[in-house]
Amino acid sequence: MSVLILHILYLVAITAEAMTAALAAGRRNMDWVGVCLLAAVTALGGGSTRDVLLGHHPLVWVVHPEYLLVVVVAAMTTIAIARFMHHLRRLFLFLDAVGLVVFTIIGCTIALDMGLPVVVAIVAGMITGCVGGVLRDILCNEIPLLFRAELYASVSIVTGGLYVTGMQLGLPHDPVMYTATIIGLAMRLLALRFNWQMPKFVYTLKLH
Amino acid sequence: MSVLILHILYLVAITAEAMTAALAAGRRNMDWVGVCLLAAVTALGGGSTRDVLLGHHPLVWVVHPEYLLVVVVAAMTTIAIARFMHHLRRLFLFLDAVGLVVFTIIGCTIALDMGLPVVVAIVAGMITGCVGGVLRDILCNEIPLLFRAELYASVSIVTGGLYVTGMQLGLPHDPVMYTATIIGLAMRLLALRFNWQMPKFVYTLKLH
Amino acid sequence: MSVLILHILYLVAITAEAMTAALAAGRRNMDWVGVCLLAAVTALGGGSTRDVLLGHHPLVWVVHPEYLLVVVVAAMTTIAIARFMHHLRRLFLFLDAVGLVVFTIIGCTIALDMGLPVVVAIVAGMITGCVGGVLRDILCNEIPLLFRAELYASVSIVTGGLYVTGMQLGLPHDPVMYTATIIGLAMRLLALRFNWQMPKFVYTLKLH
Repeated sequence: MSVLILHILYLVAITAEAMTAALAAGRRNMDWVGVCLLAAVTALGGGSTRDVLLGHHPLVWVVHPEYLLVVVVAAMTTIAIARFMHHLRRLFLFLDAVGLVVFTIIGCTIALDMGLPVVVAIVAGMITGCVGGVLRDILCNEIPLLFRAELYASVSIVTGGLYVTGMQLGLPHDPVMYTATIIGLAMRLLALRFNWQMPKFVYTLKLH
Repeated sequence: MSVLILHILYLVAITAEAMTAALAAGRRNMDWVGVCLLAAVTALGGGSTRDVLLGHHPLVWVVHPEYLLVVVVAAMTTIAIARFMHHLRRLFLFLDAVGLVVFTIIGCTIALDMGLPVVVAIVAGMITGCVGGVLRDILCNEIPLLFRAELYASVSIVTGGLYVTGMQLGLPHDPVMYTATIIGLAMRLLALRFNWQMPKFVYTLKLH
Repeated sequence: MSVLILHILYLVAITAEAMTAALAAGRRNMDWVGVCLLAAVTALGGGSTRDVLLGHHPLVWVVHPEYLLVVVVAAMTTIAIARFMHHLRRLFLFLDAVGLVVFTIIGCTIALDMGLPVVVAIVAGMITGCVGGVLRDILCNEIPLLFRAELYASVSIVTGGLYVTGMQLGLPHDPVMYTATIIGLAMRLLALRFNWQMPKFVYTLKLH
């Protein structure tokens, strides 16, 4: 049961990631192909990076090329309905938070299934959840937002930490997954609502 | 026969990609080592990315380290003859178009030989043809040209689509390859000549 | 014996790379999580890139997740002692040079153990030594320093070339390793001291 829900949430998540990436592309006046490429890299880049680093082949979109289609349709739909997207701002911030948490748990699951250590599983979850956005920001020629603002990576670490710890303790899968999902999602939404930030490290001298 | 022609065109293509990358390096005043590195990443980065994503090891330059030498010699030659390169501008735009098409077909061939789905083969062709230039632009700290201008990725998709479809229909290899090559090349050259562009997606509101 | 020394130097090197990356993060006002992520990518990114390109799995930090801890502790320590770091400027430039040479030799060793050609082993050493800093600069949205300044990649090529050649000639491992290390280190320190530079390639015309 929970596998089906996770799969549906995964499809929702890649769609939401693709659509927010398409808007980022639009703010840089990319052409339609650029919009689709940026959407694909953002939505599927985190999982692909995880699989490449863990040597976990074949990649998701190689086995399921229909996900590429989902991403491209999401990107083109965004171009069509862009003028109304502003009204859906809150919905997309919510779906982006769902995506972060779902991607994280999927990444942890794959690493645990490969028999990898606990710390590596948490890192695999964080890579799955966060790297897509980092690639998007690099391709848009910006310092990744992840490194500068909001409890984004931290939410991923907490979600993954709860899930992996629960699994290691031999607790039943579904309650652990739902608990990690809900706590991670709540943490992310509260961070957005109250503008929670990590402390910043400000250093002004040059070493070189 | 056609394999030999494809191989010769591949060598021409990595040489041309290395030389245009060397000029991009020169416009940013990189040192000689930087010029060679940028040339190598641009010429061999597309194929390497494809092989890493598909889990297709060993990589081309690991089996044929002489290609690294080709790229370095091309880069150093560019430094030597840079003052004359401007007169060869049209030639290099033509060779760059040849490279795009040849890289695409090689990428499709490798994916089809691995028994991967049609859509993945077309994506593998596009990655082979386009990612080198994307890496070059990222390392030069620019938004990749691919995302913003010209029918570059589109030419790759059309070329790969024709080639992969022809192979799937069981048509003889060589005519399919030549047809895809000529149509892709013509499309790219016409796009350059008449400044064809994809429509751009312009979006000005911020989601965050 | 020499394996133990190399291992200790490796730990010193990833610590030093993590700390200098943390300072780079501080100059861009990244938050604490961003500091740790940039430190991890810089310290472990070169080896990870090498292993991904060579298909050499599992990666170092997957087998030894404690290295991730080393890097995070180094990054947080840097935040704590940042105000004193300026006085340690020379020490860190020295440790960075040690890291470059040690990473290079480790990269060459792994490629030679895989039975790869001499040129590929030297490239593997250069990737191990240099790519971490390139990833750091890309994530900080700068043209990689490697491409623009100082004998950094060149030191890696000379160190790797000496080591690989010595191994190919059947010379005993330890003297070859120490000789390559000392010559590489001396070359890097002299380059820093006397501001040695590679000639730059300056090109002002646009091809497109």
